[in-house]
Amino acid sequence: MPSYKAPVREYKFLLKDVLKIERYSNLPGFAEAPIDLIEQVLEEGAKFCEDVLAPLNKVGDEHGCVRHDDGSVTTPPGFKEAYDQFVAAGWPALSSDPAYGGQGLPHIVALAWNEMVASSNMAFGMYPGLSHGAYAAIHSHGSEEQKQIYLPKLVTGEWTGTMNLTEPHCGTDLGMLRTKAIPQGDGSYRISGQKIFISAGEHDLAKNIIHLVIARIEGAPQGTKGISLFVVPKFLVNADGSLGARNGVVCGKIEEKMGIHGNSTCVLNYDDAVGYLVGIENKGLAAMFTMMNVARLGVGLQGLSQSEVAYQNAVIYAKDRLQMRSLTGPKNPGGPADPIIVHPDVRRMLMDAKAFNEGARAFAFWTALQGDLLHASPDEKVRERADDYMGLMTPVIKSYLTDKGYANATNCQQVYGGHGYIEEWGMSQFVRDARITQIYEGTNGIQALDLVGRKLGANGGRAIFAFFNEIDDFAHNHEDDAELAEFVEALKSNKAQLQDGTMWLMQNGMTNFDNAGAASHDYLNLFGITALTYMWTLQAKAALAAKKNGGAGDPYFDTKLATGRYFLARMAPDAPAHLAKLKSGAGPVMALAAEAF
Amino acid sequence: MPSYKAPVREYKFLLKDVLKIERYSNLPGFAEAPIDLIEQVLEEGAKFCEDVLAPLNKVGDEHGCVRHDDGSVTTPPGFKEAYDQFVAAGWPALSSDPAYGGQGLPHIVALAWNEMVASSNMAFGMYPGLSHGAYAAIHSHGSEEQKQIYLPKLVTGEWTGTMNLTEPHCGTDLGMLRTKAIPQGDGSYRISGQKIFISAGEHDLAKNIIHLVIARIEGAPQGTKGISLFVVPKFLVNADGSLGARNGVVCGKIEEKMGIHGNSTCVLNYDDAVGYLVGIENKGLAAMFTMMNVARLGVGLQGLSQSEVAYQNAVIYAKDRLQMRSLTGPKNPGGPADPIIVHPDVRRMLMDAKAFNEGARAFAFWTALQGDLLHASPDEKVRERADDYMGLMTPVIKSYLTDKGYANATNCQQVYGGHGYIEEWGMSQFVRDARITQIYEGTNGIQALDLVGRKLGANGGRAIFAFFNEIDDFAHNHEDDAELAEFVEALKSNKAQLQDGTMWLMQNGMTNFDNAGAASHDYLNLFGITALTYMWTLQAKAALAAKKNGGAGDPYFDTKLATGRYFLARMAPDAPAHLAKLKSGAGPVMALAAEAF
Repeated sequence: MPSYKAPVREYKFLLKDVLKIERYSNLPGFAEAPIDLIEQVLEEGAKFCEDVLAPLNKVGDEHGCVRHDDGSVTTPPGFKEAYDQFVAAGWPALSSDPAYGGQGLPHIVALAWNEMVASSNMAFGMYPGLSHGAYAAIHSHGSEEQKQIYLPKLVTGEWTGTMNLTEPHCGTDLGMLRTKAIPQGDGSYRISGQKIFISAGEHDLAKNIIHLVIARIEGAPQGTKGISLFVVPKFLVNADGSLGARNGVVCGKIEEKMGIHGNSTCVLNYDDAVGYLVGIENKGLAAMFTMMNVARLGVGLQGLSQSEVAYQNAVIYAKDRLQMRSLTGPKNPGGPADPIIVHPDVRRMLMDAKAFNEGARAFAFWTALQGDLLHASPDEKVRERADDYMGLMTPVIKSYLTDKGYANATNCQQVYGGHGYIEEWGMSQFVRDARITQIYEGTNGIQALDLVGRKLGANGGRAIFAFFNEIDDFAHNHEDDAELAEFVEALKSNKAQLQDGTMWLMQNGMTNFDNAGAASHDYLNLFGITALTYMWTLQAKAALAAKKNGGAGDPYFDTKLATGRYFLARMAPDAPAHLAKLKSGAGPVMALAAEAF
Repeated sequence: MPSYKAPVREYKFLLKDVLKIERYSNLPGFAEAPIDLIEQVLEEGAKFCEDVLAPLNKVGDEHGCVRHDDGSVTTPPGFKEAYDQFVAAGWPALSSDPAYGGQGLPHIVALAWNEMVASSNMAFGMYPGLSHGAYAAIHSHGSEEQKQIYLPKLVTGEWTGTMNLTEPHCGTDLGMLRTKAIPQGDGSYRISGQKIFISAGEHDLAKNIIHLVIARIEGAPQGTKGISLFVVPKFLVNADGSLGARNGVVCGKIEEKMGIHGNSTCVLNYDDAVGYLVGIENKGLAAMFTMMNVARLGVGLQGLSQSEVAYQNAVIYAKDRLQMRSLTGPKNPGGPADPIIVHPDVRRMLMDAKAFNEGARAFAFWTALQGDLLHASPDEKVRERADDYMGLMTPVIKSYLTDKGYANATNCQQVYGGHGYIEEWGMSQFVRDARITQIYEGTNGIQALDLVGRKLGANGGRAIFAFFNEIDDFAHNHEDDAELAEFVEALKSNKAQLQDGTMWLMQNGMTNFDNAGAASHDYLNLFGITALTYMWTLQAKAALAAKKNGGAGDPYFDTKLATGRYFLARMAPDAPAHLAKLKSGAGPVMALAAEAF
């Protein structure tokens, strides 16, 4: 049975030493959450995830969700009780708006919490995760009346939410959607159509489910310009807030998936369901993207979460499993063999995961802090920068963290040898669960296209040039820092390569858009490596400083530095390969006629 | 429902144009198999795999194998009937020794056949695959009496075989095994112990199962020097060849695995089972390795097989699925959107798989031809070279082809977007089935260690230097070939990098064995890239020649060249990254104390 221990020490190091969030104690959200309180929240959260959610992870995988003939769905044994505890403890409210009952903590705190939830039980975490997406859409685009009706119950977790985009014939290409909305003249609409892949679409955890649905209003333009967003509650809500009639939305099927069995992935059939427009007619796609961007950061974190929990279990196994002697002589001479953690190739797999996890976590936190500044900073320049960075980093976090998360989960499964392939040991689940993160909320290919096609060029490249300038400034300011030199050198080199790739894209991507498409995957990976090199540089700087400030006796900081050096030696060298591939252009990629495949 | 079409055209091109096997028509095996006959055999085999085995692949995944209370095992619906047809058609006998009823065709033909079987139904293919391993062990190490008893029935497929190595506490470290063999004074032994992960360990396909089991004879030395190999039939065999009493070996459990559900992976409990020594007392490990090397090439091929079948289905989907418009303008203006094969990032995933599959297949065939020359050539020098190459290439094929096979299966699943994650579409099975190939028959980490620790240095590095010389000679002989220049240049560059890595290992791996261990994975990958660059150069040369010899009108050869160029542009650039990582040595990998993880 796999286990999980929340990396609270890592969170503390990031918040306090690396990001120094106490700097922001004058801002709303931060003001109410001194670092001591945040640490306390994280420690409480850790306990809940370790003790309540993690033990249910394998249960969820084995039992899955069951759909009954009446369309109702039963979640795996224990999920309902855990969800009740989850709600009772107030976890759904963590970073929500106090105006609707939320606790208003910074998003960066919710991020840590979300990682813990996803590591301990990703399928479970998707129920409240989707609620948060629905909350965000209504919060940003709903009318005040809609907010009053839906937000307080989503904030407590009494109700959950969903996002309904995909239809059988359209996933990425939402302009092709067929779900119809017919105005009723009373401000309401009737929604009909079929949505698929709806996570948490039907279940027994909450009293009501608030579906956010995109559909085309009768007579609206074809394509993406005719898409509107609706809120469609499973049970209609009476004026007094009590639940009314069952609405015309039914779960037609639960999909048999490769993983995340504990979450019900539904086909939802809408048949004259009552819905209410959210925001402006035909502007639904933009409103939906409010949810998507929040969700994409969350999915990136899910990728990291599976890498983290798989890593933790691989470490336990590698210290426990005795097999062969160390190449440099017995390390456990009293035993029949050495623990496999002595073998360099086992180390390589563990260090790959560790160096990625800690770098990726820093990257996600650093970006989430931008999200907080975007909402809380009184300084327009800071908000603009934060918005730029959020836009630029979101596709990188979604894609890079999930591709690597899956690769690391696979490597950590590999540490178990044959036992890794047996479901009983639980490592297969981490791999199978991680796999979806590369696909949903926009495939990783779509993320890469979003990065090169939209985010790079926005406002004349303002975001990417700001990032380059930030790195240049950092490198310049630390030119004489001998202890940090190896990190700063690597940072300069990777940034130069990313800049080279960016220039290539600017010169070649506009004359032939296929060049941009063909380069996008490798560009995104080059970006990810550069971002993590920067994050490791920041962490190394913080660790060196901490050692000087009384932390010299704490092995944590030396471990941190050694892990960062591993990243430089063993992971950063992929940068030139990505640069070479992206600069080879569309030619080799598009050379064949479709018939030649 | 996924489909499969055997790549017979590829086999023909490799055998005729690239490897020119008609050169060897004077050798035994080849003499009896003119190219026309081989092509006919492959076409017949293709039909069988496409029509009989492929439709059962998903059935096997869904139903799995069922163990009954008496220890008997039922295979998935249709497997028994398919196996009967398989036996009736004589497929198990393809490359077996005519002295025992085999058809004596070259191994290279069996290789093509094995790829087709594995692509169409990997779990099914493991039943005859394991039989072949048992056949090989008895053929090489058994007494003439044992050969007479077991080989004819293994050759017809009337009986199947297994390999029994792993025990709960030892997989890689077989020296720790506990299964005991007690001599009975009549030449037989009684075997007791537990073996796990025994593929095809119990089933209803054949009348008898011939278990090859390693065990320690009472009083034998501890460690690997006290391991002997035994043949333990499920049913004892009477003097007249008829089946006698049920032997003391029972399936205690079928493992729940991530994939290959159609194959029964058994816990086998041996309780005073009658066994017969194969070969020499205490030399069982060497005998078992006869089976292992055959098996390792087969596993490499399985990795390729899943990449191939996943690729084929991804191509079908990519041509069929309409989503978004091409970045360079509509390619299907009459339809609601373009087929996704127009999108460069989809192309990238398909081309990665195609360029790998065709390069890897050439590598496997090129190596298998060495296996044939090893057995058939009258020239001692040729046999020595062939033996060297087989030893050197086996771990590379096992590891590189399975790591990439899994990665490609994952990418081809990605082409399906959300549908790829749904079991119904069948792509998940290819990924889950492919995953085992990185683990069994020696994990890929063990393969890498075998390569750098054993194969590289054997006979003073004779094998690797022969490979370098062969490449140098090729490059020298084609210096003025302008058409081939891009391939020759890449080959020279990659060979130089592999040589650089080899020298680094020779200088640093002996002074600190951990350097060798830490470098092994990247060295193996660098080797794989170099080998595939060579294979693509050979294929490009053959394609250019074919175009000049009447093939100019056949688009096959231009497609081949474009695919090779893709490999150079998009896959070969990983070489320097692997070189840089391996040369960073053991330091970063081993920096942390075990407690720091």
